[in-house]
Amino acid sequence: MTDKKIQLIPLGGLGEFGMNMMCLRYGDDIVVIDSGMMFPEAELLGVDFVTPDLTYLKENRACVRALLLTHGHEDHIGSVAFFLGELNVPVYGTAFTLALVERRLDEYELDEEVDLRPIKPKQIIEIGPFKIEFIHVTHSIVSAVAVAITTPLGVVIHTGDFKVDPTPTDNELFDLHTLAEYGKRGVLLLMSDSTNSDRAGYSDSERAVRPRLEDAFNRAERRLLVSCFSSSIHRLQLILDLSQDFGRKVAIVGRSMTAVTEIAHNHGFLQIPDGILIRPQDVMDTPPNKVTVLISGTQGEPMSALSRVSVDNHKNITAEKGDTVILSARIIPGNEKPIFRMIDHLSRRGADVLYGAMNPPLHVSGHGSIEELRLVLNLVRPRYFVPVHGEYRQLAKHARLAEHLRNLGLEESFVLETGDRLEIDNRGARKAGRVTVGRVCIDSGVIDEVVGDTVIRDRRHLSEDGIVLTIIAINKHTGKVEGTPEIVSRGFASDEKSEMMQAARLIVAKTLENSSVEEKTDWGVMKEKVRSDLKRYISKQTQRRPLIMPVIMEI
Amino acid sequence: MTDKKIQLIPLGGLGEFGMNMMCLRYGDDIVVIDSGMMFPEAELLGVDFVTPDLTYLKENRACVRALLLTHGHEDHIGSVAFFLGELNVPVYGTAFTLALVERRLDEYELDEEVDLRPIKPKQIIEIGPFKIEFIHVTHSIVSAVAVAITTPLGVVIHTGDFKVDPTPTDNELFDLHTLAEYGKRGVLLLMSDSTNSDRAGYSDSERAVRPRLEDAFNRAERRLLVSCFSSSIHRLQLILDLSQDFGRKVAIVGRSMTAVTEIAHNHGFLQIPDGILIRPQDVMDTPPNKVTVLISGTQGEPMSALSRVSVDNHKNITAEKGDTVILSARIIPGNEKPIFRMIDHLSRRGADVLYGAMNPPLHVSGHGSIEELRLVLNLVRPRYFVPVHGEYRQLAKHARLAEHLRNLGLEESFVLETGDRLEIDNRGARKAGRVTVGRVCIDSGVIDEVVGDTVIRDRRHLSEDGIVLTIIAINKHTGKVEGTPEIVSRGFASDEKSEMMQAARLIVAKTLENSSVEEKTDWGVMKEKVRSDLKRYISKQTQRRPLIMPVIMEI
Repeated sequence: MTDKKIQLIPLGGLGEFGMNMMCLRYGDDIVVIDSGMMFPEAELLGVDFVTPDLTYLKENRACVRALLLTHGHEDHIGSVAFFLGELNVPVYGTAFTLALVERRLDEYELDEEVDLRPIKPKQIIEIGPFKIEFIHVTHSIVSAVAVAITTPLGVVIHTGDFKVDPTPTDNELFDLHTLAEYGKRGVLLLMSDSTNSDRAGYSDSERAVRPRLEDAFNRAERRLLVSCFSSSIHRLQLILDLSQDFGRKVAIVGRSMTAVTEIAHNHGFLQIPDGILIRPQDVMDTPPNKVTVLISGTQGEPMSALSRVSVDNHKNITAEKGDTVILSARIIPGNEKPIFRMIDHLSRRGADVLYGAMNPPLHVSGHGSIEELRLVLNLVRPRYFVPVHGEYRQLAKHARLAEHLRNLGLEESFVLETGDRLEIDNRGARKAGRVTVGRVCIDSGVIDEVVGDTVIRDRRHLSEDGIVLTIIAINKHTGKVEGTPEIVSRGFASDEKSEMMQAARLIVAKTLENSSVEEKTDWGVMKEKVRSDLKRYISKQTQRRPLIMPVIMEI
Repeated sequence: MTDKKIQLIPLGGLGEFGMNMMCLRYGDDIVVIDSGMMFPEAELLGVDFVTPDLTYLKENRACVRALLLTHGHEDHIGSVAFFLGELNVPVYGTAFTLALVERRLDEYELDEEVDLRPIKPKQIIEIGPFKIEFIHVTHSIVSAVAVAITTPLGVVIHTGDFKVDPTPTDNELFDLHTLAEYGKRGVLLLMSDSTNSDRAGYSDSERAVRPRLEDAFNRAERRLLVSCFSSSIHRLQLILDLSQDFGRKVAIVGRSMTAVTEIAHNHGFLQIPDGILIRPQDVMDTPPNKVTVLISGTQGEPMSALSRVSVDNHKNITAEKGDTVILSARIIPGNEKPIFRMIDHLSRRGADVLYGAMNPPLHVSGHGSIEELRLVLNLVRPRYFVPVHGEYRQLAKHARLAEHLRNLGLEESFVLETGDRLEIDNRGARKAGRVTVGRVCIDSGVIDEVVGDTVIRDRRHLSEDGIVLTIIAINKHTGKVEGTPEIVSRGFASDEKSEMMQAARLIVAKTLENSSVEEKTDWGVMKEKVRSDLKRYISKQTQRRPLIMPVIMEI
């Protein structure tokens, strides 16, 4: 027994934001914690989302025993379907987390049955040499857990995502007692959420949002459009309750918002007052001061419901003078431009938009700030510490935070990045080389609210099907398109002078023609529209999926 | 006289961030307030900066009497050289503002002598029908003024950029008295800075930064690298003073940092303690706890001094384990990715980086928040109000803020965007159509710290010289480049199969070869390096300057 070692192998989420996946190995047994996705950077046009490369797990297929899920956010469960397509092992998570997973599984056709096993906080399961306890934590999604894994060499704790909310809206407190007990008995290794390790103090409680939202409800004289992450069940409940109090009906608009509220309602996490819901198509016929629209699209995603409303392009909802729009979510770094463009469009229509810095806290973070991270470190007092979930700077800050535990049992902190292997045996802990990691680009063919073919393509090599660039010259101030769009391709079957490519130019020209001036001066929207129209056309004609990159030149 | 009207014509900065320029016309007399530039959006690769289109002024050349400058920030003076190249009129500003202008003028060769006329706060000058008083305001740069222009129809006030700092570090208070007197006598039109109209409360005083920086100096055990905007003279003084107190020598690194400190010193705005300065090349030979490096590059600009340090690519300075790096500046929206990448690189080298949310206020805003904007509105109580400087959402918020003045003399607020003309006569005020506006792309051929040809190109039509795309495939995790870079061109003289284009491919390949793995996985840096090398090669071979766009594909 004593010659065996523990290995910790992060396949995603360390040194990068999103697609969290951590493997814990002891001898020939591996459990995997979380299977997330990330949204592609702007540079990765033509890709819908990105998942971890599973090469390491596939090479050790016979050892993989289970997938453990800490909570239902996309950066923790977003790649479960692809994971199970490769490695069909039992999946453990709370009933609510598994319900969110099931929703995604329904969209894909997996060859085999999947084995979802609901667990509850304080429940202990045994998998091979591991005894695994689930511990309730507070976070911006309900039903989140940490995992404490007892191995032959000692206890390994992974917090998942958390904050220490002293007054959670569902009154389910963070189970600090259990964490403290493990700490008292001795913990070999702690992995803890680093997302906010660069924020001083404490994160606000979810309850802090209520007075601000209430204030907005009080002031609103006409229609209220409220956008938040669909998984923020606490927030949805708050908005439903306030609407009830203020005599407003509620319309739920946007695909993910509709699906998640239904799941949360079915699991008893969301109480929907009787008769409060109305259909999106009835919003404009309801008196403006009697309706709240719960709408998806906090990040200014070009095809989201709120983005469409902002350019008068939504089939049911229009923003009008005197309306109030509330963005109750954080701005994910990198999304500033599309979000601010959307807010500008809404402001031009006379809506008062409440966002970010304007009215704190219209949103509170779901991740613990420095003092909460310290609290968890102090309760657990591990021998080794590995910060998880964050870019390098956040991991490094978190490791620095743990330094005061040096005299209190901490032997060493390791800042690992995705692919770095950590080894622990009786002699100690050390980095031990790297495993194959990478990002797999997923091209789902699905665009929000457009139900198309759900062909999932795993494009390890983006260039496999070639690249098609389309060059469009638009006058920024007038929105006028100059000349016919050009098309350039490389490594793609078709000759540029071919009939098909000429037709493709016309497709692009038509997309431009059918767009409003406002859309044409909004490059985010135009790139997305051109890309999706071209993609549809080319894949229909050729059954190929080249990388499609619209290049818009301002003139 | 009474049949004449005032026209307000914004040529930049309203509904967009940067390149501020406002024209005030009465009859056949025009004065222009500020002549700024903006940094191009990421989509505008191949462009160094962007200036307002001067068509309207050129068409009314005979009427343009003067250019008035409110302060020395680039978004207010950055295009003065181009302005004077087209319209050589007298330029009024404080001595310090004009010194910063002169620095830029030296870089370009203008055909004629320029006429710079220094003014002081409280000074009144007459230009045609206008009587212009300059009013001292507090801002993040010293020697900033507002202008009050008395016209035959009434007083027009333009605040420039401001905050109401109750304790400015130079003890030069905002001249609220003069503003109040104008308000008492009656003001026809107020234009006021809207940058922070979406921030509640008051902006912190510049003095609030001192305790936090002092704390950082106290904790730092080794080298201190501090980066701030070179124009933040208050901040530079603070860092010099603290270095003096803590027995640290100071090295000034980066072209703009060196130039601006010299100008500020010469004008008596910056006190440099005797013998405190050392040369950049002596930093690494000075004991690490005895040196502060004042370094440019707060925005993660790929070629800036701090960015180079972050990837071990600076000729004098290296970041080492235990060093402290302080970013004492705001993150300009859109720059998050390059800034965070730079911080990650520095963290990997073991430096502790203090930035943004981590240690507020390591930086304070130079623009007034809502309560300061209200104060100015209440003192001036104008008949008409035009919010200036900001994106549409900020202008709209600012206009909403003024609503409480409705009973106190305010007749109407106008949210104007660049190009919208406002007309005021004895019958009232109204929007009156649009003038020609646009963005002129400037390709200077100059890259920070690389002194090349300073050929200024005014490229109204980006596509004029064609477009050259180079497609590079890089493995994100290993930094390995796959295959030889491809080159695609359109509207550019050379055939893609020509010898020159083949040579260009090799140029790109060489640039890649000579870059470290870390640089290769940092797209911002790679795009900039490839672009500048290709640009140099192509313009040498062909004397043309096509738009050069590196397309990096992650594989």
